[in-house]
Amino acid sequence: MAAPARKVSLTGIKPTGDPHIGNLIGAIRPALSLVEEHDSIYFIADYHALTTIRDPEKVREYTRSVAATWMAAGLDTERTIFYRQSDVPETFELAWVLSCLTGKGLMNRAHAYKAIRDRNAEAGRDDLDSGVNMGLYNYPILMAADILLMNSDLVPVGRDQTQHVEIAADIAGSFNHHYGASFRFHVPKAVVPEAEAGRTLPGTDGRKMSKSYDNTIPLFLPEPKLRKLIRRIPTDSVPVEEPKDPDSSPVFRILEQFADAETVAETRKRLEAGGVGWGELKNQLFEVLNEQLRDLRARYEELMAPGSELDRALAEGAEKARRRARPLLDQVRAAVGM
Amino acid sequence: MAAPARKVSLTGIKPTGDPHIGNLIGAIRPALSLVEEHDSIYFIADYHALTTIRDPEKVREYTRSVAATWMAAGLDTERTIFYRQSDVPETFELAWVLSCLTGKGLMNRAHAYKAIRDRNAEAGRDDLDSGVNMGLYNYPILMAADILLMNSDLVPVGRDQTQHVEIAADIAGSFNHHYGASFRFHVPKAVVPEAEAGRTLPGTDGRKMSKSYDNTIPLFLPEPKLRKLIRRIPTDSVPVEEPKDPDSSPVFRILEQFADAETVAETRKRLEAGGVGWGELKNQLFEVLNEQLRDLRARYEELMAPGSELDRALAEGAEKARRRARPLLDQVRAAVGM
Repeated sequence: MAAPARKVSLTGIKPTGDPHIGNLIGAIRPALSLVEEHDSIYFIADYHALTTIRDPEKVREYTRSVAATWMAAGLDTERTIFYRQSDVPETFELAWVLSCLTGKGLMNRAHAYKAIRDRNAEAGRDDLDSGVNMGLYNYPILMAADILLMNSDLVPVGRDQTQHVEIAADIAGSFNHHYGASFRFHVPKAVVPEAEAGRTLPGTDGRKMSKSYDNTIPLFLPEPKLRKLIRRIPTDSVPVEEPKDPDSSPVFRILEQFADAETVAETRKRLEAGGVGWGELKNQLFEVLNEQLRDLRARYEELMAPGSELDRALAEGAEKARRRARPLLDQVRAAVGM
Repeated sequence: MAAPARKVSLTGIKPTGDPHIGNLIGAIRPALSLVEEHDSIYFIADYHALTTIRDPEKVREYTRSVAATWMAAGLDTERTIFYRQSDVPETFELAWVLSCLTGKGLMNRAHAYKAIRDRNAEAGRDDLDSGVNMGLYNYPILMAADILLMNSDLVPVGRDQTQHVEIAADIAGSFNHHYGASFRFHVPKAVVPEAEAGRTLPGTDGRKMSKSYDNTIPLFLPEPKLRKLIRRIPTDSVPVEEPKDPDSSPVFRILEQFADAETVAETRKRLEAGGVGWGELKNQLFEVLNEQLRDLRARYEELMAPGSELDRALAEGAEKARRRARPLLDQVRAAVGM
């Protein structure tokens, strides 16, 4: 058992297709670094995906793929707890208990839900709940259950998700208020990873790298495609010999996140001095990226093979998660009268 | 195994305190008679109770008491499946799946929720969701999960609950539409018991017997209190020797439900002929009721004793229910991509 001073961090991972290097820098690596200072728990929110994905093959594929991605990126399944949400049914029982302690007003104020209502209003629809299923509407309660079931202290999330952690904290407070004599949840706090708090990785068009902008560099591209994609990043027309502004170039800014500090400093100097063309910089970025992604890709493909270590790791992770969840849920059950 | 022609009926029992003879006539006996023609399943909706009861001792006491009541009234735990909702966690996982297939509009139209909004509007409250917790709002989804998890065909309910069964049928339809190639739920139908469809048991004031009118005859009164309560039923002032209208007297109408047909016919004749006073009729009602309730009470008290057959029956019932639920949930999981 860990010393009591270590706090518990919980990272939820949504299964989506085609992870990109922005995910690696902005989410995966910061989340993996938590293991140094926290008891770190990671789970794949596969049942969350049902709120939007109706294709069972996609759910399965994304879940497996995202698990392989995180493990390839260095998730140490021995040192952490790593599981699929759907392998821990205690989550759903707790979600019911929590729903009885959650005022409907709290859900009405959730940003994601309000955004859909706003879009419906803009589209002139009479029914502002048009297109909202109850999974979407209840999502903050399920997320609260994910968080509270592990009695998490810290929840690393993107800025757009901080409200959900606040909602989980509210619900924990409500439970503690009503049933605190028998059992108290830790009240969780959101942590926004530095990478996101500060600069974010630019996409191939200079805007934030995001699937919705179609400007990503996918993590698992074959080499030739990676080279081609990097070559196609638009650059300005400053001639080779003239000084260049490194910070205005997505190529440099991506390089900055992947190369070691020395290489970055040296490249910055050379760009500012002039004499380096964008083509050369792109080649350098390809070499640096490809070296790192080559290993990641190889490991990913190993893990994606049927019967790989992945399935065993997830099965063991489910067991570890349930060993943690079960006694907590039993205490909750006793507290509420079951 | 039962022949496939037999349909499955599911009866949900809400744990509440102080069952009365109106429950016995209007709900318990009609539900128990289902066993003759259907594969009958009964469950205590203890997790439903959390939507309104925050006192854990009350939840526990009501759950045990209502289980003992139904068993005392003749629920045959060998021939049926009888369990506590909270012992079948598959319910809550299924509820999440179903919520992703439930349009929020469907919940907005649920009578019970609309009734609270109407009350808030009448009270001049700005927030029409005031006092609504998400357990209340989600209740029809949990009820759908209860029903569909058992793949029920028929659900005996009071008139006020028929909409909930219709919602469950809608949700089943939505699941079958999206995932029907892998798995299809039976689409459940509500059945309103005859007793409720026709006449209902009058309370001691002649209105429908109901806890909210404070006019009930509790099932488990000690004899002297039962006698006293019957004596206090108001009657008209028609003198002993004059003819009386049996159907206008709650005393007679209660007797009618408990005495055998011959006794009822004879008493009717005697009342209509004159010469029978209300006091005599009340004595007769007491004798008839007490004879039946005495056995029920004795059995109830046996069952309520710690370590009684009750706990074993519920544990076995939970096992039977989960044996039925598990393969169904596994099919649902596979269908949606888990």
